[in-house]
Amino acid sequence: MFFLNILLLATVPASLALWPIPHTVKTGQSNSGAQCIDISAKGDVGDIAKSAIDRYTALVNRHNFTAPLDYKKGITETDGVVSSLEVSVDDQLDTLDLDTDESYTLDIPVDGISTLKAKTPYGIIHGLETFSQLVFANGDNKAIFNTPVHIEDSPAFPHRGILLDTARNYFSVVSIKRVLDAMSYNKLNVLHWHIVDAQSWPVESKVYPELQEKGAYSPDMQYSYDDVDCIVKYAKERAIRVIPEFDVPGHTFIVGKAFPELVSCMNKQPYWDKYAAEPPSGQLNIAKPETIEFAEKIFAEYTKLFPDAVFHLGGDEVNRDCWNEDSDVQQYLKDNPDQDIESLLVDWYSKIHEYLASTGKTALTWEETLFHSNYTPPKDTIIQTWIDEQSIPKTVAKGYRSIASPSSSYYLDCGHGSWLSNNDGNSWCDPFKTWMHVYNFDPLANITDASEQKLVIGAEVAIWAEQTDETVIDQRLWPRAAAMAETAWSGKADASGHVRTTSEVASRLHEQRFRMVDRGIGAEPMQPLWCVRNPGSCALYSDS
Amino acid sequence: MFFLNILLLATVPASLALWPIPHTVKTGQSNSGAQCIDISAKGDVGDIAKSAIDRYTALVNRHNFTAPLDYKKGITETDGVVSSLEVSVDDQLDTLDLDTDESYTLDIPVDGISTLKAKTPYGIIHGLETFSQLVFANGDNKAIFNTPVHIEDSPAFPHRGILLDTARNYFSVVSIKRVLDAMSYNKLNVLHWHIVDAQSWPVESKVYPELQEKGAYSPDMQYSYDDVDCIVKYAKERAIRVIPEFDVPGHTFIVGKAFPELVSCMNKQPYWDKYAAEPPSGQLNIAKPETIEFAEKIFAEYTKLFPDAVFHLGGDEVNRDCWNEDSDVQQYLKDNPDQDIESLLVDWYSKIHEYLASTGKTALTWEETLFHSNYTPPKDTIIQTWIDEQSIPKTVAKGYRSIASPSSSYYLDCGHGSWLSNNDGNSWCDPFKTWMHVYNFDPLANITDASEQKLVIGAEVAIWAEQTDETVIDQRLWPRAAAMAETAWSGKADASGHVRTTSEVASRLHEQRFRMVDRGIGAEPMQPLWCVRNPGSCALYSDS
Repeated sequence: MFFLNILLLATVPASLALWPIPHTVKTGQSNSGAQCIDISAKGDVGDIAKSAIDRYTALVNRHNFTAPLDYKKGITETDGVVSSLEVSVDDQLDTLDLDTDESYTLDIPVDGISTLKAKTPYGIIHGLETFSQLVFANGDNKAIFNTPVHIEDSPAFPHRGILLDTARNYFSVVSIKRVLDAMSYNKLNVLHWHIVDAQSWPVESKVYPELQEKGAYSPDMQYSYDDVDCIVKYAKERAIRVIPEFDVPGHTFIVGKAFPELVSCMNKQPYWDKYAAEPPSGQLNIAKPETIEFAEKIFAEYTKLFPDAVFHLGGDEVNRDCWNEDSDVQQYLKDNPDQDIESLLVDWYSKIHEYLASTGKTALTWEETLFHSNYTPPKDTIIQTWIDEQSIPKTVAKGYRSIASPSSSYYLDCGHGSWLSNNDGNSWCDPFKTWMHVYNFDPLANITDASEQKLVIGAEVAIWAEQTDETVIDQRLWPRAAAMAETAWSGKADASGHVRTTSEVASRLHEQRFRMVDRGIGAEPMQPLWCVRNPGSCALYSDS
Repeated sequence: MFFLNILLLATVPASLALWPIPHTVKTGQSNSGAQCIDISAKGDVGDIAKSAIDRYTALVNRHNFTAPLDYKKGITETDGVVSSLEVSVDDQLDTLDLDTDESYTLDIPVDGISTLKAKTPYGIIHGLETFSQLVFANGDNKAIFNTPVHIEDSPAFPHRGILLDTARNYFSVVSIKRVLDAMSYNKLNVLHWHIVDAQSWPVESKVYPELQEKGAYSPDMQYSYDDVDCIVKYAKERAIRVIPEFDVPGHTFIVGKAFPELVSCMNKQPYWDKYAAEPPSGQLNIAKPETIEFAEKIFAEYTKLFPDAVFHLGGDEVNRDCWNEDSDVQQYLKDNPDQDIESLLVDWYSKIHEYLASTGKTALTWEETLFHSNYTPPKDTIIQTWIDEQSIPKTVAKGYRSIASPSSSYYLDCGHGSWLSNNDGNSWCDPFKTWMHVYNFDPLANITDASEQKLVIGAEVAIWAEQTDETVIDQRLWPRAAAMAETAWSGKADASGHVRTTSEVASRLHEQRFRMVDRGIGAEPMQPLWCVRNPGSCALYSDS
């Protein structure tokens, strides 16, 4: 059986090594020159598609990539020339949200004009990426192999994201754009921007300027309104939504730098671990009406700055001891004997969710809001699960939409050991998540009911930044985020229902990794080059 | 107690944050301008010192580094100006080996001429690095803080190395030079160049050109004689020895690509794990005299190409099954009933060690040669231990010199998970080795006898390249290799005998990490910037 696998893998033509793999691919036996591809719009396709056409015209014609398996291929005879790609779109409306149609159809003849059709500009963007992955170096020229090619494609999940944490360590706008570029190469479509946290508040606030003045690491480690607009626009041009997270009531030490009166258990030392998951400790004081007012003003400001219909309000890792030992909270509870921490928290959650709803946004929140408090979120709330893989089935069983981010499979920062300076032990979420481990996770595991499966709207890997900054972001994310990207775009199984194995997809992911490196993304290598070139020879069969 | 620590750490003046910390540092209360430092030789210091003077003149005068703890420091009043550094050396002889004196004395006045004195050009190189770490940005100018400064320094161990594996994946000459630059910033002095292995033979051979023709990954992934000379020279100019490893009789599949008749169990699939630690399997056939001849010719060629007095001949992970199932070997044993695999291996080791001795080189070999065979190596053989931390005391107890490379602490590639394409489990040497774990390892642990302690000649971290290539080498090595570098240069304890803790040294290592990034080395961050700026606030005290 494995011999057959080895044979199959070894003979996969490079032109089929698309990542993520499309829903349907039909290929022929011919090869076509692609020396100079003119990509043009048929009719008005709108600004988003136009900018993608310009981008991929430059990429396809500059790019001169040889697949790692083709290192000895030499020059291939061609039977025709693909001179151009004609792009057309049914609806040039550029709304980008959970309901956006991302499908496309791509036809490449042996000779003549290729066509790319989509319902929306965002389908065009994904189709252009697929097309770009089909153009290879052929000596000094370029070629598309195994023509004619017919591809019909659409994603398995509408939410395919990366969480980027710009609070523990700062990421320049340039480095965030590079993340967005690499995301578009893998058809990922959500940047979950965990923009502020206990350690810093890099984003400009016009309502509370003190937050950034006292909370940003430095004047050159900030995101102005213009920076945010620039990143949101850059993302949208790559079919990527930007969902900001403003985490309350926990993880808010940094708010206390500007407004000490709003925050409980500010930076308790040395025993911070009684009050927070990591230093510095600090939570909005839920006994004070002023903290509701603060949260509402923050939400009012940033729901306007960030156009996406979904807004993440955190709600994770709330620590009761932080409030139990706060004298204000204690006084309040003494004055209100009918209340306790739990009821305070429920009231607090109710008010901020109510307020967020009033802005017209959909709330996205970490699973604790649903599972670790007595609060019942509005039914349209999206729950991001991270603590337990079983939280996904539990969430959809309660009728809520779920985004799968289990730390056990999707936390790409894990396995790097403790970062506490006197602790030479492991990290809480060891071990390291290999690309195979990421790939093998199934967001739909243990969900049999079709309507409940529909409630799993997607998957998101997270790169928390305690041990990451822009010097290392490329290799922390890639190719592991690409492994999740295929699971989320192509699904776990092929058309025949066969669940793809990591041995089967390794060669394609190697190619995608080398393609990313060729495009300037410092993705890490998965194996010795010898293994890349000898598919199936670097797997373990003894115990399988 | 920790409060005191926090206080101490928070008030460490940046100018004391040298890495690795010198043996003796005396500082004053003044500050001195260092706008334009003229570094000059007093008398003839030799070419090696001259090139270092040119290099550090450029670095010190270009460099405009602010320590991370000084981000709010502003401009410091200066009491004088350090105009120049006068360099003198007792002996300009440029021999670089285990006995080279690396000590130096550095004096920086409040005002006037600094002096750097050393016995050899290599002490000068280390002293210049120390000097460069004392020059900081001071507004638009530069300054040296806490003058006058008097430093007396010398290393705890003569061998302080990094193993770089250029066989699993290729590293360009440019990337190797960057490794050497970063090594010199940390006073590391040995590049253990694991240049060939089963997967590829990138280095030119004039004796057996087929090795490189058939064994290099591609024509542009090779090291010519000129490349090797260039790297050896570049290293020597940075006080770094280059010790090449040509691993026999195991790890030699690639030899079989050129000479199939010399190699047993060539690339057994799919059950390679019966024959080798990793694919592809293959070992020199020790029943054939031709393999001795081959090894001798290889050693003859490369002991000439590589000038260092020490030559690494591998000897690790020999697999008996590989030979047990080889028909030639079986025939030989049938014809020679007095022999068996063990006696064959002993004879083979004897002959190659004898031959290497005849070239005038000292043999360096992995611990298996000593512990996993009946062979008794010559007493001047250096044993590199990696399997078990206890192998270090065991080696010196037998009277052999030892280099400490325990995989449990010094294998920087570990903890990245399995790289076998169908295995989503961990790596054999999990977990990841954090900088704290690396720093806490003591090469002298469990060795009480002073003469035995002397036999531990040094320490070496290894970065095996199954999951590493030049796209990620910087952050795989740094700052963790720097943690080992301080252990090996400064020793575990300060002058008072106090063993340094990771909490105490964290701020200095942070500064060194940011300095390396400033110098173009992509070292990974150790903590959130908030922790960098709040020493002692990101440690765990509850269980300590």
